[in-house]
Amino acid sequence: MNTAEYLVKKLEELDINDFFGVPGDYNFNLLYAVNNNPNTKFIGCTNELNAGYAADGYARIKGYGAVITTYGVGELSAINAIAGSYAENIPVIHIVGLPSTKNIEQKKSVHHNLFDVNYRAFYDAYKSVTAGVAFLAKDNAKPEIDRVIKILIKEKKPVYIAIPDDIATMEISDRVVSMDYFSNKDVLKEVSEKIAEKIKQAKKPVILGDALVKRYDACIEYKEFAEKSGLPVTNFIMGMDLIDMDYEKYVGGYFASYKNQIAQKYLEDTDCLIAVGPIYSDLNSLGFNLPYKINNHIAIYGNYSYVDGKKYSGVKMADVLESVTSLISAREEEVDKPNIGYKKRSCENKSLTQEYIYTRIQEFLKENDILICETGIVPYGISPLKVPNNVTIEFQMLWGSIGWATPATLGACIAKPQSRVILITGEGAHLASAMEIGTMLKMGIKPVIIVINNDGYTIERYLSQNSNDSFNDIPKMNYSKFARTFEGDVWATKILTDEDFDKALKVTQIMNKMCYLEITTESMDIPALAKTFISDSKKQNDSEPVTTIFKPEVTNYEEFAVSSDSFNNEYETTVHKKFTTNEED
Amino acid sequence: MNTAEYLVKKLEELDINDFFGVPGDYNFNLLYAVNNNPNTKFIGCTNELNAGYAADGYARIKGYGAVITTYGVGELSAINAIAGSYAENIPVIHIVGLPSTKNIEQKKSVHHNLFDVNYRAFYDAYKSVTAGVAFLAKDNAKPEIDRVIKILIKEKKPVYIAIPDDIATMEISDRVVSMDYFSNKDVLKEVSEKIAEKIKQAKKPVILGDALVKRYDACIEYKEFAEKSGLPVTNFIMGMDLIDMDYEKYVGGYFASYKNQIAQKYLEDTDCLIAVGPIYSDLNSLGFNLPYKINNHIAIYGNYSYVDGKKYSGVKMADVLESVTSLISAREEEVDKPNIGYKKRSCENKSLTQEYIYTRIQEFLKENDILICETGIVPYGISPLKVPNNVTIEFQMLWGSIGWATPATLGACIAKPQSRVILITGEGAHLASAMEIGTMLKMGIKPVIIVINNDGYTIERYLSQNSNDSFNDIPKMNYSKFARTFEGDVWATKILTDEDFDKALKVTQIMNKMCYLEITTESMDIPALAKTFISDSKKQNDSEPVTTIFKPEVTNYEEFAVSSDSFNNEYETTVHKKFTTNEED
Repeated sequence: MNTAEYLVKKLEELDINDFFGVPGDYNFNLLYAVNNNPNTKFIGCTNELNAGYAADGYARIKGYGAVITTYGVGELSAINAIAGSYAENIPVIHIVGLPSTKNIEQKKSVHHNLFDVNYRAFYDAYKSVTAGVAFLAKDNAKPEIDRVIKILIKEKKPVYIAIPDDIATMEISDRVVSMDYFSNKDVLKEVSEKIAEKIKQAKKPVILGDALVKRYDACIEYKEFAEKSGLPVTNFIMGMDLIDMDYEKYVGGYFASYKNQIAQKYLEDTDCLIAVGPIYSDLNSLGFNLPYKINNHIAIYGNYSYVDGKKYSGVKMADVLESVTSLISAREEEVDKPNIGYKKRSCENKSLTQEYIYTRIQEFLKENDILICETGIVPYGISPLKVPNNVTIEFQMLWGSIGWATPATLGACIAKPQSRVILITGEGAHLASAMEIGTMLKMGIKPVIIVINNDGYTIERYLSQNSNDSFNDIPKMNYSKFARTFEGDVWATKILTDEDFDKALKVTQIMNKMCYLEITTESMDIPALAKTFISDSKKQNDSEPVTTIFKPEVTNYEEFAVSSDSFNNEYETTVHKKFTTNEED
Repeated sequence: MNTAEYLVKKLEELDINDFFGVPGDYNFNLLYAVNNNPNTKFIGCTNELNAGYAADGYARIKGYGAVITTYGVGELSAINAIAGSYAENIPVIHIVGLPSTKNIEQKKSVHHNLFDVNYRAFYDAYKSVTAGVAFLAKDNAKPEIDRVIKILIKEKKPVYIAIPDDIATMEISDRVVSMDYFSNKDVLKEVSEKIAEKIKQAKKPVILGDALVKRYDACIEYKEFAEKSGLPVTNFIMGMDLIDMDYEKYVGGYFASYKNQIAQKYLEDTDCLIAVGPIYSDLNSLGFNLPYKINNHIAIYGNYSYVDGKKYSGVKMADVLESVTSLISAREEEVDKPNIGYKKRSCENKSLTQEYIYTRIQEFLKENDILICETGIVPYGISPLKVPNNVTIEFQMLWGSIGWATPATLGACIAKPQSRVILITGEGAHLASAMEIGTMLKMGIKPVIIVINNDGYTIERYLSQNSNDSFNDIPKMNYSKFARTFEGDVWATKILTDEDFDKALKVTQIMNKMCYLEITTESMDIPALAKTFISDSKKQNDSEPVTTIFKPEVTNYEEFAVSSDSFNNEYETTVHKKFTTNEED
């Protein structure tokens, strides 16, 4: 078994069956390993940034994702997507095919090099935006693969692996190495008891769930914890799909002071906030002025927790939740439940408005749908929705890279072919990566794509000095016509009125093909939540950011090694320092 | 005058009148400075990678280029383009708008941040691919701007400058700082005399010119040197536009052993190779087996020269050439001049072939045209062309990032509106960045765009194991229809035969609008030069790379400071160490 085949096999064990990327002459041997494995295949995208986004979308739905690029030009094109996965805790492995070792040793200026040849330059750049990097060589290939995959699994963050062409085809041992890791039992016991006790003592505990619950595979444990506790439950925007919205203790999403005063009041009044996997950021938590106090704030993260400002390391989120659940008893207090979701609206055969669009999307959604929401205005339309159970909703609220959602939709479709996938994007963001429509049609996948064409970067029109600042104008395109320029089966239409939108949504349900709806709204029409939040956020927000209190754990990845049963010392000491730093250059 | 206005003014002095980029809420104040200056304007692209390519294309034609992006998502999307500019010596300044200093100091998790907030992460990544980086703060804004612009001017390589939002609008002094720098007179005298003496002593000296002659503004001095010397002149692929092809001593381009045996023989037989601005690489020099010997090889680079293996620093290429020219006398020997260019071909009303396409492009070109050649197969079709005088031809032979040429064409058109700009690209590369057609139409610019549609990544079909490896397939698109999906004035047509191609080329000359020709060839049809080179390059090339002998000068940019009259000590010592390293974090 060669290095590339071993790597593909290990990733297949993580349910990675699809590798996104762009072929290049330095990565052919990686592509052969993917295509020769009966359970994996390569999906070429139109550029590497889009491939990175697609792998991110795939990982959000299926757990892990992979992208394969070529040296220099390829890997750097994808770096923004990988940084986004790093910001938002999406475990994507970026595999880069390099020129052969001989070229590297001789510093040969083969193509895709800098003029002052430096084969570590891009590897160095990747250190800033991944949880672990590896540069394979003859004597470290297997342990380094095992090491970065272990980081991928534990940290749920991207890793980067550079593979010279000759190393890809080098025979290596396929000795099995356990990738398991476990919570530290003593710390787990201590922190769980502490949390359970805090909850018991508190008068008004509240649970707040967020995206990292999904990222660290703790959805079931979170739900069980919430239900067993009997406590009121809320969420930030990215956590809106964690709890069934009909659940009697669900008080709706938290939208700062802009909407849902009930959730707002619960959080203001609480003497014990149990935040599970929270991402505090200007957009996801709609500011930093959540009324937290360090002494009434429990924060449960993927591999560590905070209680009363003290950090407990080496404990997995799912384990902490399960353990706490076993220690608490249910509260019987009724909760004050708001009306969740948009009110029904009737069709009036008028021009479309944002509010109408989201009202209809609310009705359109059904169980097991996957909804991919582009950054910009869309999250403010989607987050107040009432959605059916088991709908997966993905946002990129922290990183917020325009163009992410279209390729991420490709990834989601490939990840879960049995689900209906719906993309909602503004046309400005769509334009940045819309060529992936071609890849979708080539693959024969069938999402419902809703492109809201409002003539430019509307959110920026609100944020900049004048709504007509020319830099917020973009090329005008006939999007539905664009979708039909590719070979493939698509129903593409342009929609101007609410009536046509209603009809089109119905039509999508009988179409067994990609449905591409270009819908037009007024340039300055935005959802109500966006309007209030944006106008307010122009004023500076002076509260101290939570991130300075709950510091994310920064692991010393250089010290990682492979396998054992404790959390802090689980790896063999097989790391070749030489290959994880560039000091020898 | 505020920081942003000062920066724009300084760049305007370098003839940068157009700034490419994508707007974002952290860079609005930079955009206002651009748009409020009567001599500069902002050109929004559909994504940042394309904006980076456009700035590169602009700089290739006009001298310098600029790109403006937003923090995180924007700057990282552009990094591949900037690395390409770095590899190929294109001076582009990348200006990034950041959140305000307060957010940075408090490590606030505002959007476009990593989860573990690190405002230096992307700045760090950029160190690998630029000649200088700066992170502006209250007390260093002016000297840091002066410092990086000085690097831009001297090194002709990209620099990166991060500007927090509040710093952009901070008032600063606009005290004039001289950006001049001069060759060291003593070194210049020594190296020029040495080179002149070597030429005089040599029996068969040969001049080889390449792209860096253009990059360091030495085209006139190079031509005068060549003509005064009376020596035979050749070039690598990227230097094919340096010398008038009818010049009696021009022996045609060097294509290793694959074509033009006359140039090949001159280089094999020479006892004194004078290489001016050479880029030795697998593709630009068609391998490394140029028969150089360290003792008969003079290499004249932008700011240093090599003679007999000894390096002379602190001397500008133009100065060295001018000085040597004044010291030599002309040789009268006749040179053996090959037939240059494709032979005439008659139209046979058949399917198009690559050879036919390039023959016709040869006839189509006229003085002052600008030809932008995408990476892949195109350079092998273009490099054997005989072209009229003063045609500018741009390749990206070293970095070779597919998708570069389409946005670079946008940049070239903006840089020199009075020239006809012709883009030649394969459809696979075009697909990676084709949305910039929309930006071109929005801007009303009128290039001739030739998209060679040969059904996939043809060069990779040759390089991979099987020509039908599925990873070399791409989405099928109707390109000419695609060009018409945008609002704007375009003549777009699909061409199948040689006759239609002839007609279409004629039509472009009477069209006062963008002309977009999608031309189709057989999937495996490639130019003859490509065929021989590719089949040969699969065999390993064992000669020692020139790059290990002629090491590019790596300046210690941290020690740069501003202004004075010697080359090695020309800057004031105003550098704030603190802001050029990240050690304080």
